[in-house]
Amino acid sequence: MQVVVPFAAETPKTRLQPALGADERSAFARAMLADVIEAIEAAGHRPTVLSTSPLDLAVDAAVTVDDRPLSAAVNAQLEATDTPLAVVMADLALVTPATVDRLCSRQGDVVIAPGRGGGTNALVVRHPEFRVDYHGASYLDHCAIADKIGADVGTIDSFRLASDVDEPSDLVEVLVHGTGRAPARLREFGFELDRGGGRVAPLRGESVRE
Amino acid sequence: MQVVVPFAAETPKTRLQPALGADERSAFARAMLADVIEAIEAAGHRPTVLSTSPLDLAVDAAVTVDDRPLSAAVNAQLEATDTPLAVVMADLALVTPATVDRLCSRQGDVVIAPGRGGGTNALVVRHPEFRVDYHGASYLDHCAIADKIGADVGTIDSFRLASDVDEPSDLVEVLVHGTGRAPARLREFGFELDRGGGRVAPLRGESVRE
Repeated sequence: MQVVVPFAAETPKTRLQPALGADERSAFARAMLADVIEAIEAAGHRPTVLSTSPLDLAVDAAVTVDDRPLSAAVNAQLEATDTPLAVVMADLALVTPATVDRLCSRQGDVVIAPGRGGGTNALVVRHPEFRVDYHGASYLDHCAIADKIGADVGTIDSFRLASDVDEPSDLVEVLVHGTGRAPARLREFGFELDRGGGRVAPLRGESVRE
Repeated sequence: MQVVVPFAAETPKTRLQPALGADERSAFARAMLADVIEAIEAAGHRPTVLSTSPLDLAVDAAVTVDDRPLSAAVNAQLEATDTPLAVVMADLALVTPATVDRLCSRQGDVVIAPGRGGGTNALVVRHPEFRVDYHGASYLDHCAIADKIGADVGTIDSFRLASDVDEPSDLVEVLVHGTGRAPARLREFGFELDRGGGRVAPLRGESVRE
Protein backbone atom coordinates (compact mmCIF):
# COMPACT_ATOMS: atom_id res chain seq x y z
CA MET A 1 0.00 0.00 0.00
CA GLN A 2 1.12 3.56 -0.70
CA VAL A 3 1.80 5.33 2.60
CA VAL A 4 2.08 9.12 2.78
CA VAL A 5 4.20 10.52 5.62
CA PRO A 6 3.63 14.28 6.07
CA PHE A 7 6.67 16.18 7.32
CA ALA A 8 7.07 19.84 8.31
CA ALA A 9 10.66 20.32 7.14
CA GLU A 10 11.37 23.91 8.16
CA THR A 11 10.27 24.22 11.78
CA PRO A 12 9.81 20.70 13.05
CA LYS A 13 8.74 19.94 16.61
CA THR A 14 8.60 23.47 18.02
CA ARG A 15 6.84 22.20 21.16
CA LEU A 16 10.02 20.31 22.08
CA GLN A 17 11.75 23.68 22.47
CA PRO A 18 11.98 23.45 26.29
CA ALA A 19 14.03 20.26 25.94
CA LEU A 20 15.92 20.53 22.65
CA GLY A 21 17.74 23.29 20.75
CA ALA A 22 16.72 24.15 17.17
CA ASP A 23 19.38 21.98 15.48
CA GLU A 24 18.62 19.11 17.85
CA ARG A 25 14.89 19.35 17.11
CA SER A 26 15.63 19.22 13.39
CA ALA A 27 17.95 16.20 13.74
CA PHE A 28 15.55 14.41 16.09
CA ALA A 29 12.57 15.01 13.78
CA ARG A 30 14.54 13.55 10.86
CA ALA A 31 15.55 10.55 12.98
CA MET A 32 11.88 9.87 13.82
CA LEU A 33 10.96 10.27 10.14
CA ALA A 34 13.67 7.76 9.14
CA ASP A 35 12.39 5.27 11.76
CA VAL A 36 8.84 5.62 10.43
CA ILE A 37 9.98 5.18 6.80
CA GLU A 38 12.00 2.07 7.63
CA ALA A 39 9.09 0.52 9.56
CA ILE A 40 6.76 1.11 6.58
CA GLU A 41 9.25 -0.44 4.14
CA ALA A 42 9.95 -3.40 6.45
CA ALA A 43 6.20 -4.06 6.57
CA GLY A 44 6.22 -4.31 2.76
CA HIS A 45 4.58 -0.97 1.96
CA ARG A 46 5.71 2.06 -0.08
CA PRO A 47 6.38 5.30 1.83
CA THR A 48 6.30 8.76 0.24
CA VAL A 49 7.37 11.70 2.35
CA LEU A 50 4.99 14.63 1.83
CA SER A 51 7.32 17.46 2.79
CA THR A 52 6.76 21.20 3.05
CA SER A 53 10.13 21.76 1.32
CA PRO A 54 12.83 19.73 -0.49
CA LEU A 55 14.53 17.23 1.76
CA ASP A 56 17.68 15.14 1.92
CA LEU A 57 16.94 11.91 3.70
CA ALA A 58 19.21 9.42 5.43
CA VAL A 59 17.00 6.64 4.09
CA ASP A 60 15.71 5.83 0.64
CA ALA A 61 12.17 7.15 0.08
CA ALA A 62 10.26 9.18 -2.48
CA VAL A 63 9.69 12.82 -1.52
CA THR A 64 6.77 14.95 -2.74
CA VAL A 65 6.95 18.67 -1.92
CA ASP A 66 3.73 20.52 -1.07
CA ASP A 67 3.95 23.66 1.03
CA ARG A 68 0.25 23.90 1.79
CA PRO A 69 -1.12 23.23 5.29
CA LEU A 70 -1.33 19.59 6.37
CA SER A 71 -4.99 18.87 5.55
CA ALA A 72 -4.85 20.50 2.10
CA ALA A 73 -1.64 18.67 1.19
CA VAL A 74 -3.00 15.27 2.32
CA ASN A 75 -6.33 15.85 0.57
CA ALA A 76 -4.47 16.59 -2.69
CA GLN A 77 -2.87 13.14 -2.34
CA LEU A 78 -6.25 11.52 -1.69
CA GLU A 79 -7.76 13.28 -4.72
CA ALA A 80 -4.89 12.16 -6.96
CA THR A 81 -5.35 8.43 -6.40
CA ASP A 82 -8.08 5.82 -6.76
CA THR A 83 -6.25 3.13 -4.79
CA PRO A 84 -6.13 2.75 -0.99
CA LEU A 85 -3.85 5.26 0.69
CA ALA A 86 -2.43 5.31 4.21
CA VAL A 87 -1.30 8.46 6.03
CA VAL A 88 1.15 7.99 8.90
CA MET A 89 2.55 10.88 10.93
CA ALA A 90 6.33 11.41 10.90
CA ASP A 91 6.63 11.71 14.69
CA LEU A 92 5.43 8.22 15.60
CA ALA A 93 8.82 7.22 16.97
CA LEU A 94 7.53 3.95 18.47
CA VAL A 95 6.17 2.57 15.22
CA THR A 96 7.34 -0.93 14.27
CA PRO A 97 6.77 -3.02 11.14
CA ALA A 98 4.18 -5.00 13.14
CA THR A 99 2.16 -1.87 13.94
CA VAL A 100 2.25 -0.75 10.30
CA ASP A 101 1.06 -4.22 9.32
CA ARG A 102 -1.79 -4.06 11.85
CA LEU A 103 -2.83 -0.67 10.46
CA CYS A 104 -2.70 -1.60 6.78
CA SER A 105 -4.31 -5.03 7.12
CA ARG A 106 -7.30 -3.78 9.14
CA GLN A 107 -10.49 -3.83 7.06
CA GLY A 108 -12.66 -0.72 6.71
CA ASP A 109 -13.42 2.09 4.24
CA VAL A 110 -11.58 4.31 6.70
CA VAL A 111 -9.23 2.99 9.39
CA ILE A 112 -8.13 5.36 12.15
CA ALA A 113 -5.39 5.03 14.74
CA PRO A 114 -6.28 7.69 17.31
CA GLY A 115 -3.56 9.76 18.92
CA ARG A 116 -3.59 11.20 22.40
CA GLY A 117 -5.64 14.35 22.85
CA GLY A 118 -8.31 13.44 20.27
CA GLY A 119 -5.91 13.41 17.31
CA THR A 120 -5.52 11.12 14.31
CA ASN A 121 -2.04 9.65 14.10
CA ALA A 122 -2.53 7.20 11.25
CA LEU A 123 -5.22 6.59 8.69
CA VAL A 124 -6.06 4.19 5.88
CA VAL A 125 -8.48 5.53 3.27
CA ARG A 126 -10.25 3.16 0.90
CA HIS A 127 -13.30 5.37 0.15
CA PRO A 128 -13.02 7.81 -2.80
CA GLU A 129 -14.95 10.63 -1.12
CA PHE A 130 -13.16 10.71 2.24
CA ARG A 131 -11.16 13.86 3.00
CA VAL A 132 -9.14 14.73 6.10
CA ASP A 133 -9.44 17.62 8.53
CA TYR A 134 -6.59 17.51 11.04
CA HIS A 135 -7.56 20.65 12.91
CA GLY A 136 -8.83 20.17 16.47
CA ALA A 137 -10.41 16.88 17.62
CA SER A 138 -9.63 15.20 14.34
CA TYR A 139 -10.50 11.70 15.55
CA LEU A 140 -14.11 12.72 16.15
CA ASP A 141 -14.16 14.85 12.99
CA HIS A 142 -12.86 11.97 10.86
CA CYS A 143 -15.50 9.64 12.31
CA ALA A 144 -18.17 12.25 11.46
CA ILE A 145 -16.82 12.79 7.92
CA ALA A 146 -16.83 9.02 7.31
CA ASP A 147 -20.38 8.74 8.66
CA LYS A 148 -21.58 11.52 6.37
CA ILE A 149 -20.38 9.74 3.22
CA GLY A 150 -21.53 6.30 4.38
CA ALA A 151 -18.00 4.94 4.91
CA ASP A 152 -17.49 2.40 7.69
CA VAL A 153 -14.74 3.11 10.20
CA GLY A 154 -12.27 0.70 11.77
CA THR A 155 -10.17 1.73 14.74
CA ILE A 156 -6.67 0.55 15.68
CA ASP A 157 -6.09 0.37 19.43
CA SER A 158 -2.31 0.84 19.53
CA PHE A 159 -0.13 2.57 22.11
CA ARG A 160 2.68 2.80 19.55
CA LEU A 161 0.47 4.50 16.97
CA ALA A 162 -1.12 6.73 19.64
CA SER A 163 2.25 8.04 20.85
CA ASP A 164 3.16 11.05 18.72
CA VAL A 165 6.19 12.83 20.11
CA ASP A 166 5.25 16.48 20.60
CA GLU A 167 6.28 17.58 24.06
CA PRO A 168 9.28 17.03 26.36
CA SER A 169 7.35 14.52 28.50
CA ASP A 170 6.83 12.38 25.37
CA LEU A 171 10.59 11.76 25.15
CA VAL A 172 10.23 9.20 27.95
CA GLU A 173 8.26 6.93 25.62
CA VAL A 174 11.04 7.12 23.02
CA LEU A 175 13.69 6.19 25.59
CA VAL A 176 11.62 3.33 27.07
CA HIS A 177 10.00 1.81 23.96
CA GLY A 178 11.86 3.16 20.92
CA THR A 179 14.34 0.95 19.08
CA GLY A 180 15.68 2.96 16.14
CA ARG A 181 17.47 6.19 15.30
CA ALA A 182 15.25 8.42 17.45
CA PRO A 183 16.25 6.99 20.87
CA ALA A 184 19.85 6.79 19.64
CA ARG A 185 19.74 10.53 18.84
CA LEU A 186 18.33 11.37 22.27
CA ARG A 187 21.12 9.40 23.93
CA GLU A 188 23.68 11.22 21.76
CA PHE A 189 22.16 14.47 23.04
CA GLY A 190 22.78 13.28 26.58
CA PHE A 191 19.31 12.13 27.54
CA GLU A 192 18.77 9.19 29.82
CA LEU A 193 15.91 7.93 31.93
CA ASP A 194 15.62 9.46 35.37
CA ARG A 195 14.41 6.44 37.30
CA GLY A 196 14.95 7.85 40.75
CA GLY A 197 11.46 9.15 41.51
CA GLY A 198 8.01 7.65 41.34
CA ARG A 199 7.66 8.53 37.68
CA VAL A 200 10.25 8.33 34.92
CA ALA A 201 11.40 11.45 33.15
CA PRO A 202 13.88 12.25 30.43
CA LEU A 203 16.95 13.81 31.98
CA ARG A 204 20.15 15.34 30.77
CA GLY A 205 23.02 17.06 32.45
CA GLU A 206 23.85 19.89 30.09
CA SER A 207 21.70 22.98 29.53
CA VAL A 208 19.77 23.39 26.29
CA ARG A 209 21.28 25.56 23.56
CA GLU A 210 18.98 27.58 21.35
CA MET B 1 -9.07 -15.77 34.79
CA GLN B 2 -8.91 -14.10 38.18
CA VAL B 3 -8.26 -10.37 37.74
CA VAL B 4 -7.08 -8.21 40.62
CA VAL B 5 -7.96 -4.50 40.42
CA PRO B 6 -5.96 -2.46 42.98
CA PHE B 7 -7.80 0.60 44.28
CA ALA B 8 -6.64 3.38 46.63
CA ALA B 9 -9.94 4.02 48.38
CA GLU B 10 -9.10 6.92 50.70
CA THR B 11 -7.31 9.48 48.58
CA PRO B 12 -7.91 8.53 44.99
CA LYS B 13 -6.55 10.52 42.06
CA THR B 14 -4.86 13.35 43.95
CA ARG B 15 -3.12 14.52 40.76
CA LEU B 16 -6.54 15.42 39.34
CA GLN B 17 -6.81 18.09 42.04
CA PRO B 18 -6.37 21.03 39.65
CA ALA B 19 -9.47 19.89 37.75
CA LEU B 20 -11.72 18.15 40.29
CA GLY B 21 -12.73 18.73 43.92
CA ALA B 22 -12.18 16.00 46.54
CA ASP B 23 -15.73 14.57 46.35
CA GLU B 24 -15.61 14.68 42.57
CA ARG B 25 -12.28 12.84 42.48
CA SER B 26 -13.70 10.16 44.73
CA ALA B 27 -16.86 9.75 42.62
CA PHE B 28 -14.88 9.79 39.37
CA ALA B 29 -12.38 7.20 40.65
CA ARG B 30 -15.27 4.92 41.63
CA ALA B 31 -16.89 5.41 38.22
CA MET B 32 -13.65 4.36 36.48
CA LEU B 33 -13.35 1.37 38.83
CA ALA B 34 -16.92 0.31 37.99
CA ASP B 35 -16.19 0.62 34.24
CA VAL B 36 -13.08 -1.55 34.63
CA ILE B 37 -14.96 -4.18 36.66
CA GLU B 38 -17.78 -4.36 34.14
CA ALA B 39 -15.34 -4.71 31.22
CA ILE B 40 -13.57 -7.59 33.00
CA GLU B 41 -16.87 -9.36 33.73
CA ALA B 42 -18.16 -8.80 30.20
CA ALA B 43 -14.97 -10.44 28.89
CA GLY B 44 -15.80 -13.53 30.97
CA HIS B 45 -13.22 -13.04 33.74
CA ARG B 46 -13.54 -12.69 37.53
CA PRO B 47 -12.58 -9.32 39.05
CA THR B 48 -11.53 -8.83 42.67
CA VAL B 49 -11.02 -5.29 43.91
CA LEU B 50 -7.89 -5.09 46.04
CA SER B 51 -8.78 -2.05 48.12
CA THR B 52 -6.84 -0.15 50.76
CA SER B 53 -10.02 0.02 52.88
CA PRO B 54 -13.58 -1.43 52.90
CA LEU B 55 -15.61 -0.31 49.93
CA ASP B 56 -19.24 -0.10 48.82
CA LEU B 57 -19.40 -0.62 45.09
CA ALA B 58 -22.07 0.30 42.57
CA VAL B 59 -21.33 -2.97 40.77
CA ASP B 60 -21.11 -6.55 41.94
CA ALA B 61 -17.51 -7.61 42.65
CA ALA B 62 -15.50 -9.28 45.39
CA VAL B 63 -13.45 -6.88 47.55
CA THR B 64 -10.24 -7.83 49.36
CA VAL B 65 -8.88 -5.24 51.80
CA ASP B 66 -5.11 -4.82 52.12
CA ASP B 67 -3.76 -1.50 53.35
CA ARG B 68 -0.15 -2.13 52.39
CA PRO B 69 1.49 -0.25 49.52
CA LEU B 70 0.56 -1.34 45.99
CA SER B 71 3.46 -3.68 45.21
CA ALA B 72 3.29 -5.50 48.58
CA ALA B 73 -0.48 -5.97 48.31
CA VAL B 74 -0.28 -7.31 44.73
CA ASN B 75 2.63 -9.60 45.59
CA ALA B 76 0.60 -11.07 48.46
CA GLN B 77 -2.07 -11.97 45.90
CA LEU B 78 0.54 -13.53 43.59
CA GLU B 79 1.98 -15.55 46.48
CA ALA B 80 -1.46 -16.81 47.48
CA THR B 81 -2.30 -18.44 44.16
CA ASP B 82 -0.85 -21.03 41.82
CA THR B 83 -3.13 -20.20 38.90
CA PRO B 84 -2.66 -17.38 36.35
CA LEU B 85 -3.52 -13.98 37.74
CA ALA B 86 -4.12 -10.69 35.96
CA VAL B 87 -3.64 -7.26 37.53
CA VAL B 88 -5.50 -4.36 35.92
CA MET B 89 -5.33 -0.80 37.22
CA ALA B 90 -8.56 0.83 38.37
CA ASP B 91 -8.03 4.06 36.40
CA LEU B 92 -8.04 2.56 32.91
CA ALA B 93 -11.23 4.36 31.96
CA LEU B 94 -10.99 3.41 28.27
CA VAL B 95 -10.87 -0.34 28.88
CA THR B 96 -13.39 -2.41 26.94
CA PRO B 97 -14.23 -6.13 27.08
CA ALA B 98 -12.24 -6.53 23.83
CA THR B 99 -9.09 -5.05 25.41
CA VAL B 100 -9.45 -7.30 28.48
CA ASP B 101 -9.83 -10.25 26.14
CA ARG B 102 -6.68 -9.24 24.21
CA LEU B 103 -4.76 -9.00 27.49
CA CYS B 104 -5.91 -12.29 28.98
CA SER B 105 -5.65 -14.35 25.80
CA ARG B 106 -2.10 -13.24 24.99
CA GLN B 107 0.41 -16.05 25.58
CA GLY B 108 3.45 -15.55 27.80
CA ASP B 109 4.71 -16.31 31.31
CA VAL B 110 4.32 -12.61 31.93
CA VAL B 111 2.20 -10.32 29.74
CA ILE B 112 2.60 -6.56 30.16
CA ALA B 113 0.47 -3.71 28.87
CA PRO B 114 2.74 -0.66 29.24
CA GLY B 115 1.32 2.63 30.40
CA ARG B 116 2.55 6.06 29.45
CA GLY B 117 5.65 7.26 31.25
CA GLY B 118 7.24 3.81 31.57
CA GLY B 119 4.49 2.38 33.76
CA THR B 120 2.76 -1.00 33.85
CA ASN B 121 -1.00 -0.63 33.50
CA ALA B 122 -2.00 -4.27 33.19
CA LEU B 123 -0.25 -7.58 33.74
CA VAL B 124 -0.90 -11.28 33.37
CA VAL B 125 1.30 -13.51 35.53
CA ARG B 126 1.59 -17.23 34.75
CA HIS B 127 5.02 -17.81 36.35
CA PRO B 128 5.12 -18.76 40.06
CA GLU B 129 8.24 -16.72 40.88
CA PHE B 130 7.28 -13.41 39.28
CA ARG B 131 6.76 -10.49 41.65
CA VAL B 132 5.82 -6.88 40.87
CA ASP B 133 7.62 -3.63 41.61
CA TYR B 134 5.45 -0.69 40.57
CA HIS B 135 7.83 2.01 41.73
CA GLY B 136 9.50 4.07 38.98
CA ALA B 137 9.94 2.72 35.45
CA SER B 138 7.99 -0.41 36.23
CA TYR B 139 7.72 -1.55 32.61
CA LEU B 140 11.50 -1.89 32.37
CA ASP B 141 11.75 -3.31 35.90
CA HIS B 142 9.09 -5.93 35.18
CA CYS B 143 10.91 -6.98 31.98
CA ALA B 144 14.15 -7.29 34.02
CA ILE B 145 12.43 -9.28 36.81
CA ALA B 146 10.95 -11.67 34.23
CA ASP B 147 14.32 -12.05 32.52
CA LYS B 148 16.01 -12.87 35.82
CA ILE B 149 13.66 -15.78 36.56
CA GLY B 150 13.66 -17.07 32.96
CA ALA B 151 10.07 -16.04 32.28
CA ASP B 152 9.18 -14.99 28.72
CA VAL B 153 7.42 -11.65 28.31
CA GLY B 154 4.59 -10.74 25.96
CA THR B 155 3.61 -7.13 25.40
CA ILE B 156 0.18 -5.73 24.58
CA ASP B 157 0.28 -2.69 22.32
CA SER B 158 -2.97 -0.97 23.33
CA PHE B 159 -3.82 2.72 23.55
CA ARG B 160 -6.78 1.88 25.80
CA LEU B 161 -4.63 -0.08 28.25
CA ALA B 162 -1.86 2.55 28.08
CA SER B 163 -4.21 5.38 29.03
CA ASP B 164 -4.34 5.59 32.82
CA VAL B 165 -6.18 8.70 33.96
CA ASP B 166 -3.89 10.59 36.33
CA GLU B 167 -3.76 14.22 35.31
CA PRO B 168 -6.25 16.83 34.09
CA SER B 169 -5.03 16.52 30.49
CA ASP B 170 -5.93 12.80 30.58
CA LEU B 171 -9.62 13.70 30.95
CA VAL B 172 -9.71 14.45 27.21
CA GLU B 173 -9.20 10.75 26.46
CA VAL B 174 -12.15 9.83 28.68
CA LEU B 175 -14.41 12.35 26.94
CA VAL B 176 -13.30 11.29 23.43
CA HIS B 177 -12.96 7.50 23.79
CA GLY B 178 -14.76 6.51 27.02
CA THR B 179 -18.16 4.87 26.85
CA GLY B 180 -19.19 4.08 30.44
CA ARG B 181 -19.80 5.71 33.78
CA ALA B 182 -16.55 7.71 33.83
CA PRO B 183 -17.33 10.00 30.87
CA ALA B 184 -20.92 10.26 32.14
CA ARG B 185 -19.61 11.51 35.50
CA LEU B 186 -17.36 14.08 33.84
CA ARG B 187 -20.30 15.39 31.84
CA GLU B 188 -22.38 15.57 35.04
CA PHE B 189 -19.57 17.66 36.53
CA GLY B 190 -19.90 20.05 33.61
CA PHE B 191 -16.96 18.94 31.47
CA GLU B 192 -17.12 19.01 27.72
CA LEU B 193 -14.58 18.98 24.93
CA ASP B 194 -13.14 22.35 24.01
CA ARG B 195 -12.78 21.88 20.28
CA GLY B 196 -12.12 25.50 19.41
CA GLY B 197 -8.33 25.49 19.30
CA GLY B 198 -5.77 23.33 17.55
CA ARG B 199 -5.81 20.78 20.36
CA VAL B 200 -8.74 19.46 22.35
CA ALA B 201 -8.98 20.08 26.07
CA PRO B 202 -11.46 19.28 28.79
CA LEU B 203 -13.40 22.41 29.66
CA ARG B 204 -15.96 23.40 32.20
CA GLY B 205 -17.63 26.65 33.07
CA GLU B 206 -17.80 26.53 36.83
CA SER B 207 -14.84 26.85 39.18
CA VAL B 208 -13.54 23.82 41.05
CA ARG B 209 -14.65 23.32 44.64
CA GLU B 210 -12.23 21.83 47.10
